[in-house]
Amino acid sequence: MSSINEIRAVGIVNSLKDWPQTQQFTYKPHKARPQDVDIKILACGICGSDIHASKGEWGDLPLPRAFGHEIIGEIVAIGEGVDSSKYKIGDRVGVGAQCDSCGKCWRCDHDHENTCRDSKSLYLGTYEDGTLIQGGYASHIRVNSKFAIHIPDKLETKYVAPLMCGGVTGFRPLLSYGVTKGTKVGVYGFGGIGHMSVMFAKAMGAEVTVISRGTSKKELAKKLGADHYIATSEEGFEAKNYDTLDLIVNTGSDFEPESLTKVISMLKPDGRFTFITAPPAGVKLELVPMFYLMNCIHIGGSGIGSPKEIEYMLQVAAEHDIKPMIETFDISEENVRKAWEKVDSGDIRFRAVLTGYDKFFK
Amino acid sequence: MSSINEIRAVGIVNSLKDWPQTQQFTYKPHKARPQDVDIKILACGICGSDIHASKGEWGDLPLPRAFGHEIIGEIVAIGEGVDSSKYKIGDRVGVGAQCDSCGKCWRCDHDHENTCRDSKSLYLGTYEDGTLIQGGYASHIRVNSKFAIHIPDKLETKYVAPLMCGGVTGFRPLLSYGVTKGTKVGVYGFGGIGHMSVMFAKAMGAEVTVISRGTSKKELAKKLGADHYIATSEEGFEAKNYDTLDLIVNTGSDFEPESLTKVISMLKPDGRFTFITAPPAGVKLELVPMFYLMNCIHIGGSGIGSPKEIEYMLQVAAEHDIKPMIETFDISEENVRKAWEKVDSGDIRFRAVLTGYDKFFK
Repeated sequence: MSSINEIRAVGIVNSLKDWPQTQQFTYKPHKARPQDVDIKILACGICGSDIHASKGEWGDLPLPRAFGHEIIGEIVAIGEGVDSSKYKIGDRVGVGAQCDSCGKCWRCDHDHENTCRDSKSLYLGTYEDGTLIQGGYASHIRVNSKFAIHIPDKLETKYVAPLMCGGVTGFRPLLSYGVTKGTKVGVYGFGGIGHMSVMFAKAMGAEVTVISRGTSKKELAKKLGADHYIATSEEGFEAKNYDTLDLIVNTGSDFEPESLTKVISMLKPDGRFTFITAPPAGVKLELVPMFYLMNCIHIGGSGIGSPKEIEYMLQVAAEHDIKPMIETFDISEENVRKAWEKVDSGDIRFRAVLTGYDKFFK
Repeated sequence: MSSINEIRAVGIVNSLKDWPQTQQFTYKPHKARPQDVDIKILACGICGSDIHASKGEWGDLPLPRAFGHEIIGEIVAIGEGVDSSKYKIGDRVGVGAQCDSCGKCWRCDHDHENTCRDSKSLYLGTYEDGTLIQGGYASHIRVNSKFAIHIPDKLETKYVAPLMCGGVTGFRPLLSYGVTKGTKVGVYGFGGIGHMSVMFAKAMGAEVTVISRGTSKKELAKKLGADHYIATSEEGFEAKNYDTLDLIVNTGSDFEPESLTKVISMLKPDGRFTFITAPPAGVKLELVPMFYLMNCIHIGGSGIGSPKEIEYMLQVAAEHDIKPMIETFDISEENVRKAWEKVDSGDIRFRAVLTGYDKFFK
């Protein structure tokens, strides 16, 4: 394809210790493959993962590195192996946290690419030719077209960006459970992912309970559609709410056995508790098997979503006019720093989105 | 009601250290309540729980105590509060591991009595009047009629006894998952409960895989209907069978993280792993959250079954002519000892059932 040879980016160049200082740099993308498309980026959400990875909390990373995996952009080049009935120059597409998978296993063949054992994640690892995988704080990105998902016209670029990772992460547990009209869904943690889970669960017909530490977010939770609100700071909250929930999605980072057990004990028999983030590598979760057995409940995880699941989520978002609460930052070294600091401190309501790409990368 | 005042039993009288020696004793049942029925016992299965409890593995127990919670018998007296359109003198009924529940909570009100937080278990604990709760190695038992389930005529007493606890324990995870035609079910552990799970899963239309340590049980597993057999002693068994199972029921007692993880890794995304026994009290199960997240799977427990679930299981057993493999022992002090030793050594194929009650308690 007639593709780009150099991509301009904002990221960390010398050492992750420089965090939150970023610099501009340029990189040469991996060798174009038949299945690839080149995308000119319009906006990119800032995910909690960006903070973990750029601060070195997931270990050191070869540099320079651009972060960001909630990308919305326009296709500017198409590989010769790409289905031309599906992708055209100028199409608006989104790319989430996954940019490639083996394409050969049962999971890839059955719309479960997100669980492929040979998955590639944006801005971690390398391509076959040794090129570092870069992210979306950049002028362009080159990816396997399978992971470039069309964005319905109705959805505005800056609002749809956070759906590409955070949104589908909070949506998939609902889909996997089979949430439908009347399902009683608890959303534990009301932040970036939590507030999107609430909106999706409502769209799917659920009766939604937000579970949060204090009462400060109660009004906002109700405004976004929550039917009920439980503050875990209230003594005995769990017994008051026994058997009120079919599914709880843990959108926060509580993995502390005692408080987790209280929250889980609100599930009905045959209920399910799904976490969508993991504690730092090496931290294990201790179960008391008898608790799960006597209450007939299950605990487990859900990770991002497959291309098909993202596509379906975007349809639901378009049909139900789902718009995450965002704060936008025009991309620049300075603004990436500001946005990172605000996300890191938990002050963001609720997702940061980098915009103004046209101005910066003109 | 015109009820029995003294019940003859075989059990442990002085100290659990006497195990496996038993003695005859008599006890006065708890004060008859309006909801109670008295049952003349015809047969009683020997459950793994009987061994754990009688050996003191679950802690010490006030004595004397008769064990056994897979009871089949005939109603000989009916309390004035019992629905007379439902229960009649002479009805054949079964009693499993649960003999009472609070009757007031959401769970009791929604056919989930097995998960009631104030459940009473046969041969553990006491009744309100201080009477020790006794089991089914005895001439009679008095229980809340709610937990006396009618036995379909087609099912033979000695074969149906093991269904009352072991059977429903292995059946409920299938029901809870929603096993139907084509569901790919793995049964991990092929013993007393496992062989019943296999037969129930086949009856429900599943494609069934038995997962066992070695190959010695392969022929028998296939004979009982298993479609596939996996020996975990075979190096690399898990990778050969990735993504072949929707549900795995852990009917054995493997809670060792490394081998468990290998077995669980055979699940498809959105798969479920359900255990039905727990390791000794105090032993916790360590999860690596990232493993569950990346594979989109859940782990959890299922405990016995509610009266409604038992009733449904018995219908399925009658329709599909499900008969566990049993060895019978005519009840006596000597034979309880022999049966306990055989069950404890794992030599039983697959469930022991005490019979000959009429002769012994004449």
